[in-house]
Amino acid sequence: MTSMLETSGLRNLIRRALEEDMGPGDVTTASVLTGEEKGSALAVAKAEMVVAGIEVFKEVFFTLDPDIRFIRSTVDGQEAAPGEVLAEVSGNLANILTAERTALNILQRMCGVATHTMRFAGEIRGTRARILDTRKTMPGLRILDKFAVRVGGGSNHRMGLFDGILIKDNHIAAAGGISKAVARARQGAPHTLKIEVEAGNIQEVKEAAAAGADIIMLDNMDLEEMREAVRLIEGRALTEASGNVNLSNVKRIAETGVDFISVGAITHSAPAADISLKIR
Amino acid sequence: MTSMLETSGLRNLIRRALEEDMGPGDVTTASVLTGEEKGSALAVAKAEMVVAGIEVFKEVFFTLDPDIRFIRSTVDGQEAAPGEVLAEVSGNLANILTAERTALNILQRMCGVATHTMRFAGEIRGTRARILDTRKTMPGLRILDKFAVRVGGGSNHRMGLFDGILIKDNHIAAAGGISKAVARARQGAPHTLKIEVEAGNIQEVKEAAAAGADIIMLDNMDLEEMREAVRLIEGRALTEASGNVNLSNVKRIAETGVDFISVGAITHSAPAADISLKIR
Amino acid sequence: MTSMLETSGLRNLIRRALEEDMGPGDVTTASVLTGEEKGSALAVAKAEMVVAGIEVFKEVFFTLDPDIRFIRSTVDGQEAAPGEVLAEVSGNLANILTAERTALNILQRMCGVATHTMRFAGEIRGTRARILDTRKTMPGLRILDKFAVRVGGGSNHRMGLFDGILIKDNHIAAAGGISKAVARARQGAPHTLKIEVEAGNIQEVKEAAAAGADIIMLDNMDLEEMREAVRLIEGRALTEASGNVNLSNVKRIAETGVDFISVGAITHSAPAADISLKIR
Amino acid sequence: MTSMLETSGLRNLIRRALEEDMGPGDVTTASVLTGEEKGSALAVAKAEMVVAGIEVFKEVFFTLDPDIRFIRSTVDGQEAAPGEVLAEVSGNLANILTAERTALNILQRMCGVATHTMRFAGEIRGTRARILDTRKTMPGLRILDKFAVRVGGGSNHRMGLFDGILIKDNHIAAAGGISKAVARARQGAPHTLKIEVEAGNIQEVKEAAAAGADIIMLDNMDLEEMREAVRLIEGRALTEASGNVNLSNVKRIAETGVDFISVGAITHSAPAADISLKIR
Amino acid sequence: MTSMLETSGLRNLIRRALEEDMGPGDVTTASVLTGEEKGSALAVAKAEMVVAGIEVFKEVFFTLDPDIRFIRSTVDGQEAAPGEVLAEVSGNLANILTAERTALNILQRMCGVATHTMRFAGEIRGTRARILDTRKTMPGLRILDKFAVRVGGGSNHRMGLFDGILIKDNHIAAAGGISKAVARARQGAPHTLKIEVEAGNIQEVKEAAAAGADIIMLDNMDLEEMREAVRLIEGRALTEASGNVNLSNVKRIAETGVDFISVGAITHSAPAADISLKIR
Amino acid sequence: MTSMLETSGLRNLIRRALEEDMGPGDVTTASVLTGEEKGSALAVAKAEMVVAGIEVFKEVFFTLDPDIRFIRSTVDGQEAAPGEVLAEVSGNLANILTAERTALNILQRMCGVATHTMRFAGEIRGTRARILDTRKTMPGLRILDKFAVRVGGGSNHRMGLFDGILIKDNHIAAAGGISKAVARARQGAPHTLKIEVEAGNIQEVKEAAAAGADIIMLDNMDLEEMREAVRLIEGRALTEASGNVNLSNVKRIAETGVDFISVGAITHSAPAADISLKIR
Repeated sequence: MTSMLETSGLRNLIRRALEEDMGPGDVTTASVLTGEEKGSALAVAKAEMVVAGIEVFKEVFFTLDPDIRFIRSTVDGQEAAPGEVLAEVSGNLANILTAERTALNILQRMCGVATHTMRFAGEIRGTRARILDTRKTMPGLRILDKFAVRVGGGSNHRMGLFDGILIKDNHIAAAGGISKAVARARQGAPHTLKIEVEAGNIQEVKEAAAAGADIIMLDNMDLEEMREAVRLIEGRALTEASGNVNLSNVKRIAETGVDFISVGAITHSAPAADISLKIR
Repeated sequence: MTSMLETSGLRNLIRRALEEDMGPGDVTTASVLTGEEKGSALAVAKAEMVVAGIEVFKEVFFTLDPDIRFIRSTVDGQEAAPGEVLAEVSGNLANILTAERTALNILQRMCGVATHTMRFAGEIRGTRARILDTRKTMPGLRILDKFAVRVGGGSNHRMGLFDGILIKDNHIAAAGGISKAVARARQGAPHTLKIEVEAGNIQEVKEAAAAGADIIMLDNMDLEEMREAVRLIEGRALTEASGNVNLSNVKRIAETGVDFISVGAITHSAPAADISLKIR
Repeated sequence: MTSMLETSGLRNLIRRALEEDMGPGDVTTASVLTGEEKGSALAVAKAEMVVAGIEVFKEVFFTLDPDIRFIRSTVDGQEAAPGEVLAEVSGNLANILTAERTALNILQRMCGVATHTMRFAGEIRGTRARILDTRKTMPGLRILDKFAVRVGGGSNHRMGLFDGILIKDNHIAAAGGISKAVARARQGAPHTLKIEVEAGNIQEVKEAAAAGADIIMLDNMDLEEMREAVRLIEGRALTEASGNVNLSNVKRIAETGVDFISVGAITHSAPAADISLKIR
Repeated sequence: MTSMLETSGLRNLIRRALEEDMGPGDVTTASVLTGEEKGSALAVAKAEMVVAGIEVFKEVFFTLDPDIRFIRSTVDGQEAAPGEVLAEVSGNLANILTAERTALNILQRMCGVATHTMRFAGEIRGTRARILDTRKTMPGLRILDKFAVRVGGGSNHRMGLFDGILIKDNHIAAAGGISKAVARARQGAPHTLKIEVEAGNIQEVKEAAAAGADIIMLDNMDLEEMREAVRLIEGRALTEASGNVNLSNVKRIAETGVDFISVGAITHSAPAADISLKIR
Repeated sequence: MTSMLETSGLRNLIRRALEEDMGPGDVTTASVLTGEEKGSALAVAKAEMVVAGIEVFKEVFFTLDPDIRFIRSTVDGQEAAPGEVLAEVSGNLANILTAERTALNILQRMCGVATHTMRFAGEIRGTRARILDTRKTMPGLRILDKFAVRVGGGSNHRMGLFDGILIKDNHIAAAGGISKAVARARQGAPHTLKIEVEAGNIQEVKEAAAAGADIIMLDNMDLEEMREAVRLIEGRALTEASGNVNLSNVKRIAETGVDFISVGAITHSAPAADISLKIR
Repeated sequence: MTSMLETSGLRNLIRRALEEDMGPGDVTTASVLTGEEKGSALAVAKAEMVVAGIEVFKEVFFTLDPDIRFIRSTVDGQEAAPGEVLAEVSGNLANILTAERTALNILQRMCGVATHTMRFAGEIRGTRARILDTRKTMPGLRILDKFAVRVGGGSNHRMGLFDGILIKDNHIAAAGGISKAVARARQGAPHTLKIEVEAGNIQEVKEAAAAGADIIMLDNMDLEEMREAVRLIEGRALTEASGNVNLSNVKRIAETGVDFISVGAITHSAPAADISLKIR
């Protein structure tokens, strides 16, 4: 899981988030502090949450000031109770104050996504299904959102349009049918990618299975249809339930026997986790 | 309000969001479509919402393909009912499909923030108070989040650390008291910026007012304290209520007589608005 | 295939290639020409070749000067004979002269790769195998190299480390065996990616097939081993021959029944196609 | 020669090459390894070659992971025999595996160019002539290609359009003759740049010499013409043979007495050197 | 004051300045030196000046070569006499020579601006007025110019169009009068920004004061008008004299009682300070 | 001369200058104007000047708003009298106001440099000498500064460290003498670059001439020494006078017979030309 931290994408994201907040400089800190003060601060959970992004949080401070010292009290994936200390940051006080908001915004987002994911994952524990994310992530933050989903117990669907084939109704219409669309994808796309086909009803499920789809998305089906689809497919393809999934119905969906349940809400509507930085 | 659209920041944001999703290319569309198909699509609201970002939505398609045609059926600030068409996009089908998710992610975020803001603004209608946003925005999306807040009937607090002075407890402690901190800010920062001081109790309110603060933040006070603070300040400074504001208490806070109420939740925890793109 | 042209990656690549050559300006053209001269030029093949990249060639001129007119006489995938005109460029002469070398460098590279690929693809015509590229592309030019491979009749292996899983001996050693490595990949990576396992001998082929690998790479095997591997696998996985493939042995490799043959030389050692720009 | 390593151009080139291969992350390594494994690897020559770029090779690993240790067993300019170890890389195994291909692609390119250059330089040893490169380099890699040429015993022609004046037939036609073109260049371009004129026959050689050209390019002349040109010029200008130079004719060209022979093939058609990374 | 050094803006500025001078490399140093020579150099003032930018000067060398050692003999804000040593740089000689001109260009600019500012600030010592800079800074260097102004004893006006409201005649005309323009600004802009109104005569001063402007710019008024304006405003707003300020009239302007005097010349026409680097 | 306008360097420079001033947006214009107002404005000279950069001035407005109309009343190189209109800009008023300062800052700089250069060039009219610029340009603005020098009647020295060889005393010391330094440069640097040697006295002039230097810089010599140097060199090398050149002594320097006189002050200390934009 650490590999995300190596990518230049993450470093650029942090740099841009700091620039967005700092612009040409933190006028309050620059005018009120001398720049010589030292300080230390505790990141404290103010609600129950799954911790995610503690290394990214650290990296925000380090990007501004490589001399800041950072001691983590938890690791990604741990659950934290209200009042629990997540990490301690110490060093130049001006730099801690300047980086504070950017660092918290990222950490609160990541913990928020992980916590929301965990709720869905918790609901289906005991079934064979796994919670998947979607591409409905915050623009520019996909790498963080997808990381947080994994920390929260979900699995990642494709990262973008480039690392998975998902043939939807419009692709099918343009190609002239499911089997033609699948054949074109098999011919034109790298053989390293599985071919997923969106099916809105049982007839389409049959066609997708017959065309050799590797994954069949059961799109907006009711529970009965899903059960029948799973039965018809008989393991020839992986199955993914999609559409209008919420905490009330996710368990019943899982019990239909699908392999995956994709949930847009874990990224597009996750509330931020409540965390504050207490300067001492 | 259109000026945001001129800034290079927005164009870069859109380009990065597209790159994040497209990477080296949309393998599904590239392999299944010929690239010659034409099509048209409707952006449709699937729930009640305040529309925000329709020009940014358009710009996503135009960034990928300047030949796409775009007809808007609404403007920012309008409320939309479920089923209402917001805009029509037509042209090269492959490009519409490739840009779809990125464009929707941005529009759903912006409408989500505007809609959440509107709920708070609606609650305090009739009072003199205004809803303010905070710096608790999505990393990298501040310009969009702040724009959506304005569309939803809120006002913007400072954009970042550079266009407003906000002296918090740590600044005060480092300077050796409120009056010293205010004096330093007045000496060292551009005279075009007002000086806001965070006050946690009535004593600090008095000191801030005496020091000549332009704005006094009433931080985590109860309604009684706020009322007293407003009375003590007597218009010598603007007042801003902050901390634990929600839809249940915002009206009572407004009725204390404060000028502004800042609400982190309108940006850090706004659920996405439900919008889909129906290809015809 | 046109989708590459939409990506920002390509536009940046062209811009950087122009900057690399132009630096702060073309001193010869700036001092010797007035800047008002008009001219026209023909891109002419000076040897047999498969044409690839004609749209990218055009884009180089357009990047420097959007008013240049461009008429193509061929399309990607056509074979050209010596002396054949590929395209005509006309407009501001100074700009044509300034862009000439950068445009030709890109076109000669792409036609070179397509032509070299075509030689391999031609050798195995009639067998079921397909020629694959590798990640042994010119640093920074992968998108162009992979495009040219497709034009030349090859297929693309994964674009990079992100859109395909390829478990090599070191991964296997670190995981403690093939089946454990495959299990970890299935658990931790997006389900949209197939799992390819590198096998150096028949024993490893058996283990990979038993572990449920989607693709098995037959690495540096002799023809006899390959035939046996194909027989053992019995269609449970796709097969890819790899290692020391050249024009003399590629046909025999194809006849072993493998699905794919990956060839590093089509990108890492393709000689440039000979093309010149004749100014009239 | 080390100064290239200081330029930001090189660091950006390496970063882009890594990004191109890694995209949002190495899914195989991230899912199969724990991220804690340590390892070490040897870069081994698999054919005879001139080593070039060993410091750049190192820099690729360091860019991804500054903690990797690197021990070189050779230096740029040395010849290596098959089986010879060039360097050892050790540290975090996941990072070594992730950077491997990008590092090798660069090293194989640079050694390939140096080795090809050395062949040409070896042919003309004992004459006064020197091998020059051209601007026919891989787009985006000019700084590496030109460095490798120097390592292989060649000399660099101008880096781009900005650090040398080369007046070709089209410039001459636009200016109305060689003497006018030379006069304009002398007037309009920095006096720090020599003026080279392309001459296609003896008459043009005379005109160029009379106009005071500092360098005269003998373009596509036969050996007889070259000899006569050298004799006529009598040392008043440097001479550069250009066009259709190959390993069979380069020695005879050198023996005509020219100062320089420019060879496009050493960069546009150099096959990659065969090098592998053996993980232990 | 140190916070500027933390911003990515400054690091990018330095990197771009070095790239502009180095391009693909310092050909003199690369060809004449071995790259192994060590050396040390003194930065010496050759005229009287106020020192500004000594940390930025250091950073230029560090950006090229983090191993260079730097010992400063002075700090920003000190006055230096001709012949005085400002700093010593030692380490790799080639890198010192390569960075020399870029480092000096920045230091000479910053000391030049600080020195010119000090002249104006010195003239008005003893009055209550302060010298302000304007947005008439060198394109791309605003962060350095504004820093140097502070070092030279001036204060900063707004950094750009984003951190202060300045309503000029055209804004007033478009809004339909001063009071309407002020009202719109108060409604639409962040409440953290003061509202400054440009007034060209006494009538406009009265309107601006009545509209509640926080700052009133007395634009191109004569001394008599300024005095009257200051008297009329009576402390209800800050006052800023602007237009045709020079060293001969600045004192008399200050004596009118204005709070601020803005001077474009301290940035747009400051001569460079004379500093050289003596290599030993 | 137009080629500068084609380079990406210039477009980036303009974009950065606008970003520096606009940041996240022009709060005054965005809040006070509706964004629908139209307007037109005249750029007017307020002092005598040489016009330079009128196309760059235009480009600033076009970068922000491609729909702005621009009519120039003069061209680069013309002299303008006080009150003379240089150009008219019309279109969206908000965008004109937002771009105004950035556009003027660039134009005032360029006209300032051209005007200062013209003064020096005027002084030496009738002699054979030409005025040269140096690398003492504003960091980040070299391309503009050097362009303005040419417009003002000067010639350009090398653009940077990459397009000319200038061997100074430290290079000579490191190499062990002038002849060794020249030999190394001739061996290691592109043959397209002339070799200039800095000479501080007559003895060094003799050595440089004997070593075959193409250009000899007469560094800080008095008039008598310069005359002797010119006589000794006898046309074997170009001569460049350098050091402490001002408007009082430049004519006498020119009369010593040197080919070039380089003047740092035309770029490092040129006062801005006085130009204003009158909105109608």
